[in-house]
Amino acid sequence: MHFFNKSAPIGIFDSGIGGLTVAKRVMSILTNENIIYFGDTARVPYGSKSNSTVIEYSIQDAQFLIKKNVKLIIVACNTASSIALDTLREKFDIPIIGVIEPGANLALETTKNRKIGVIGTSATINNKAYSEKLKQLDSKIEVFEKACPLFVPIAEEGWLNHPATKLVAKEYLQYFIDNNVDTLVLGCTHYPLLAATIQEIMGEKVTLIDSGFAASLQVENHLKGRGIRNDSVQLGTKEFYVSDLPDKFKSVAERFLGSELTHIEKIDVESLIVR
Amino acid sequence: MHFFNKSAPIGIFDSGIGGLTVAKRVMSILTNENIIYFGDTARVPYGSKSNSTVIEYSIQDAQFLIKKNVKLIIVACNTASSIALDTLREKFDIPIIGVIEPGANLALETTKNRKIGVIGTSATINNKAYSEKLKQLDSKIEVFEKACPLFVPIAEEGWLNHPATKLVAKEYLQYFIDNNVDTLVLGCTHYPLLAATIQEIMGEKVTLIDSGFAASLQVENHLKGRGIRNDSVQLGTKEFYVSDLPDKFKSVAERFLGSELTHIEKIDVESLIVR
Repeated sequence: MHFFNKSAPIGIFDSGIGGLTVAKRVMSILTNENIIYFGDTARVPYGSKSNSTVIEYSIQDAQFLIKKNVKLIIVACNTASSIALDTLREKFDIPIIGVIEPGANLALETTKNRKIGVIGTSATINNKAYSEKLKQLDSKIEVFEKACPLFVPIAEEGWLNHPATKLVAKEYLQYFIDNNVDTLVLGCTHYPLLAATIQEIMGEKVTLIDSGFAASLQVENHLKGRGIRNDSVQLGTKEFYVSDLPDKFKSVAERFLGSELTHIEKIDVESLIVR
Repeated sequence: MHFFNKSAPIGIFDSGIGGLTVAKRVMSILTNENIIYFGDTARVPYGSKSNSTVIEYSIQDAQFLIKKNVKLIIVACNTASSIALDTLREKFDIPIIGVIEPGANLALETTKNRKIGVIGTSATINNKAYSEKLKQLDSKIEVFEKACPLFVPIAEEGWLNHPATKLVAKEYLQYFIDNNVDTLVLGCTHYPLLAATIQEIMGEKVTLIDSGFAASLQVENHLKGRGIRNDSVQLGTKEFYVSDLPDKFKSVAERFLGSELTHIEKIDVESLIVR
């Protein structure tokens, strides 16, 4: 067991930029914590890759953060959370928190009619990441799931209020309205950008669950429970690392983060591979 | 120099299913040719990967087809065509035809006002695959380019006549209407599925260029020129290989191919790697 300095940073990794919505939540709840974010933009997306590849990449991503002396890791990627979390926890002697279990727990605390909807990428929906976790936590729950493949490119295009976005959302979400869910899990880190449109279509009576927000609350509890919550009164530092820095990255990433990306550095993807 | 049997198959590879629109064109023009298609669905998309990775994968894809004794290879992937074609031609002693040069040539033969539009994925547009080829062939040509990232997921969702599709297409295509292009290159193998909507937005005076169709014409010329055009009077055989076979693959792939996928086989991606 390692004993971490309270001022050690929290590490967050994702296959790309989606995890920045999780970082945004962490930064707003745990304002004085230092944050190190790694986005594996050279190998994005993980959702279309085999389980063994996702596990291998996730181990490399975690190792990158551990070398930066983080005190806790957030797996801010639904695919990696569903496939690699157990392996990461076995392999590394550091608290590791995914987005699926916190999201599922918050959905169960929220629903009154026991009907929960889940939207995500095809990978997340096909591997039943949320529905299995929800049924494991409460076997009586009714879960309705649907992949919404257009939401990721729409969020990346920044068409947050485009008329086409509303039509696309109507097409995807009618299924959940028809099935009378009262809680809808945003099972992809890109989707919080479309929350206003999704809420408008679903109506005010349906509660949207942001898994990044749920994970942030769990991180706070975890740090307090271990006595490693930062007690600094200063705003935390933020460092962002990516394995590829494509055109327009900064502007798109800042839309996801909701603030300016200051310290950003590209690292060589080959350096992630420990031989 | 190899001398091929006229009845040897034509090999086609793509990073995934998009190349099936090229296979469809080849099958409709060269009805008696035998076709072997390989879609690298386990490693799709190539567009977000580094040049060295795209070249490595393309070599492996070509080797898979060469082992099947194909007489010619069509690189039915815009990314691989723009990045790997020269290396493939140096490395392999067999005719290799991409989609970019035929598409660019057909556009130049078609335009009257010398204003050509090109739409494609972010990768194809960012690496200026078509615009550089067009300007190399005719330095006086005016080229207008725009990435249309939503068109691929829309085509894969099969929303070919959805009202949202029309709104998305209007948003992307207004730029080309404003710039008065008379020819628009569909620089992504997914886009022929959306040709009706694109034509409706652009108007009847604009000619759409299907690179797969252009490549098929070049293949026909090439086979005739080398005297290796199949002279069978029977319909050619078709074999399809993929490196991953996800849910719904067959139905989505058949939409791209426009006919039934009969012989389809999943191969192990590890078997592609020649050590």
